[in-house]
Amino acid sequence: MARRRGKGSLLSLAIRPTGEGPLSRQLYAAIRAAILEARLGAGDRMPASRVLAADLGVSRNTALAAIDQLVSEGYLETRRGSGCYVARDLPDARPAHAPARNGSAAPAAPRLSRRGSGLAATPRSAGSSRARWYPCFTPGVPDHSDFPFALWARLLARAWRHPSRDLVQGGDPAGHPDLRKAVADYLRQARGVRCEAEQILILSGIRQAIDLTCRLLLDPGDSVWLENPCHTGVRAAIAAAAVKITDVPVDDEGLVVARGIAKAPKARLACVAPSHQYPLGVVLSLQRRLQLLAWAREAKAWILEDDYDSEFRYQGRPLATLQSLDSEGRVIYVGSLSKVLFPSLRVAYLVAPPALVDAFRRARAAIDEYPPMTPQPALAAFFAEGHLAAHVRRQRKRYAERQARLLDLAGRHLAGKLELAADPAGLHLVARPVGPLAKIADTELTRRLDAAGLVAPALSRYYVGPRRQSGLMLGYAAVPDALVEPALQRMAEALAT
Amino acid sequence: MARRRGKGSLLSLAIRPTGEGPLSRQLYAAIRAAILEARLGAGDRMPASRVLAADLGVSRNTALAAIDQLVSEGYLETRRGSGCYVARDLPDARPAHAPARNGSAAPAAPRLSRRGSGLAATPRSAGSSRARWYPCFTPGVPDHSDFPFALWARLLARAWRHPSRDLVQGGDPAGHPDLRKAVADYLRQARGVRCEAEQILILSGIRQAIDLTCRLLLDPGDSVWLENPCHTGVRAAIAAAAVKITDVPVDDEGLVVARGIAKAPKARLACVAPSHQYPLGVVLSLQRRLQLLAWAREAKAWILEDDYDSEFRYQGRPLATLQSLDSEGRVIYVGSLSKVLFPSLRVAYLVAPPALVDAFRRARAAIDEYPPMTPQPALAAFFAEGHLAAHVRRQRKRYAERQARLLDLAGRHLAGKLELAADPAGLHLVARPVGPLAKIADTELTRRLDAAGLVAPALSRYYVGPRRQSGLMLGYAAVPDALVEPALQRMAEALAT
Repeated sequence: MARRRGKGSLLSLAIRPTGEGPLSRQLYAAIRAAILEARLGAGDRMPASRVLAADLGVSRNTALAAIDQLVSEGYLETRRGSGCYVARDLPDARPAHAPARNGSAAPAAPRLSRRGSGLAATPRSAGSSRARWYPCFTPGVPDHSDFPFALWARLLARAWRHPSRDLVQGGDPAGHPDLRKAVADYLRQARGVRCEAEQILILSGIRQAIDLTCRLLLDPGDSVWLENPCHTGVRAAIAAAAVKITDVPVDDEGLVVARGIAKAPKARLACVAPSHQYPLGVVLSLQRRLQLLAWAREAKAWILEDDYDSEFRYQGRPLATLQSLDSEGRVIYVGSLSKVLFPSLRVAYLVAPPALVDAFRRARAAIDEYPPMTPQPALAAFFAEGHLAAHVRRQRKRYAERQARLLDLAGRHLAGKLELAADPAGLHLVARPVGPLAKIADTELTRRLDAAGLVAPALSRYYVGPRRQSGLMLGYAAVPDALVEPALQRMAEALAT
Repeated sequence: MARRRGKGSLLSLAIRPTGEGPLSRQLYAAIRAAILEARLGAGDRMPASRVLAADLGVSRNTALAAIDQLVSEGYLETRRGSGCYVARDLPDARPAHAPARNGSAAPAAPRLSRRGSGLAATPRSAGSSRARWYPCFTPGVPDHSDFPFALWARLLARAWRHPSRDLVQGGDPAGHPDLRKAVADYLRQARGVRCEAEQILILSGIRQAIDLTCRLLLDPGDSVWLENPCHTGVRAAIAAAAVKITDVPVDDEGLVVARGIAKAPKARLACVAPSHQYPLGVVLSLQRRLQLLAWAREAKAWILEDDYDSEFRYQGRPLATLQSLDSEGRVIYVGSLSKVLFPSLRVAYLVAPPALVDAFRRARAAIDEYPPMTPQPALAAFFAEGHLAAHVRRQRKRYAERQARLLDLAGRHLAGKLELAADPAGLHLVARPVGPLAKIADTELTRRLDAAGLVAPALSRYYVGPRRQSGLMLGYAAVPDALVEPALQRMAEALAT
């Protein structure tokens, strides 16, 4: 009797009336903890439920519910006619500590794998969202104020109000057939890409395209040509695929193909943004395009063509894509809707050469099954009903005006400090420090502007190695017109030496 | 003059009036092809636009548009006062063939990487969609006929009609904060998972969870314990991460931990589905749970707990999760909404131990930036407004009834052929061949049923190695009530020997 009472008291200690959840759950947790911490020994007899209930001042149903759960989980066992016991067959090796908040006792720095350490070293900014929508002058942010969200909401609702079984129950690893057809039509018309719907893979972004391409076509340690400077997200995704990066310089004709050949003739992949290189904004010249294709043909290497910013060209017509010049099926063409529509959509596409279509589908299925269906039917309608083309036209006009306005106002307010040159494409300009500022590191200028509440990443940060150009990246696409002049005045003050 | 005329004729050959696109585009393509194929040599003088137009019977504007484009792309160059020439600086190494449909000349089997060959060898069924919604008796297919799609469409439209800048312009690598909070609340209440919203990562599915976990915590060649038999998709995703699989048998208490320890004591990860093992449906016993946790603690290994089918338990209460027993932060808990809501949603979640939260966030950002935002705010509302809990209750009731009905009807129609035992959980039953059928390979039975238009995968297919149980997987969740009896009659006929 004393023993039973003792146990009742023991249990009661752990049940706080202020605890979380129903009383039976608290009682269950308290008894479980006592067993796991060996305060109740294997084979110990439990008090009868009515005794337990009386001791603890809870209803008998509450006690029974807790005991039932413990029995069903194997902590307690009932023997016919003789009551309830702590299970005998629990292993000795119970958790050393009482179960606490998962991981509260975990070591501060758990051991990651070597490749995992690389992944975990990805700079936070690459994925952090804070800086992304700060208006003046975060690069790479499109203007969404014109996006027809009311229409978009209607298309979403229309697609999902009475969805077909096909739409609900599964998906093709390459994406929704209607969307793939719409993307193929768009790419043929707008970009001269030679493709059929079967070659299209719907992906979550350029990073997933890089990840899939590198894993399918390259082994760990194989070399990839990467533009230097380049987008930090592209670099992170390539590094995550455990391949070796060969940095190839970019001049005013784009990637210096001859340097790539000199440094890594046997590279397996060249990753380029020929339409509008990020961050420099240069266009890969026709000569270099042909040179790159010739190298890939001879080296049996692949080219990942990131058709970055191709939609936003304000003067002249865009150059033909590498993909459309490729007669050997060595170009993997990728593009994203992040800028054209809005970033959080997370929809991109890859055009696989016909001989790789099946391999890409299978690889995608192994790694990520198939793309989320929620936006796909609505997007297919958005393309097919002409809303995409109309939106791109509106945006192109707006961005061209914003660039002209920025150039005009910068000429007035930043003369003698920063020089901006027009760019026939893209969503940002590179400002070059002149006069006394030319002697100051661009990272220091970025720091001064940051202190004044302005965002203008240093161009040198996109480089690897000692030879870096100096500049400030000014994204203008999403900056409301009324903010530009005050922001530039503030910038001039912050940079006054 | 003769030369100019000759060229005009040459060009005209390639311009077919039935060709695609506007005439200027066709003219552009024809001249470009002539240059790339060296039919027009570097430095050759081009005919004047009006001559070209007259020769070809097109308007002068058409000819000018084509020439302008070729000049802007660098194929042609203009010299002041002396007309237009084929560019001199094109490299000799032009594509060997005329640009054709991208890749039409590609080798039939391009060289993949070693790891890529593994990815591309993923069985098509793993990602193919055809079989997924075939009603009788594809396993793993939930019933969506009850899902409140009208409500879902409203929630989507509500979320996107006037979205905030935050929702549109970016995202947290771990997912939308409201959804993470809703998932954490749900997991604490429904599954006793010890977690805060900060530990939740929204992912596209179990495969992405496996991919991320393996790449973050394991290096190529490290060992992973995998249940044998197991889900083919889980196996594909683990294999894709270039780790070494140690197959560990499953008995009626679940994963035989002692065998895992004997085969690969230094494994870095154990991948288990303790709530309802797929395909066998067994529950990992408490003793084994504690044993597994003790091993992980001592080996400093990780446990990936796939809480498969935990929502669909019809008798007794579910066992506490491994995660809730884990005092050391060694359990990575994953679950999916594919069955609970509907598969094409492609939303899953991972609960990271606190010490790994930052590493998981960064790795996700490197590989895949952040999860697509379209469904996330609507899902957060679906959880928070109680629709999830209500839907799970309805489904649980329906599935329990369907299992009872299948057992009843199978007892009548399949007696002496297949034996079905009740399963307190899940969306499928394993039918065991008896009598004369017990001597026939289950794969042969599957083949016979397939010929009769019925789907019932062979249990042995989920195994690796010689020791395999024989059985047929019967998914019952999505089979309309009226179809069950005719399907079972058909099955009996198809299996009649």
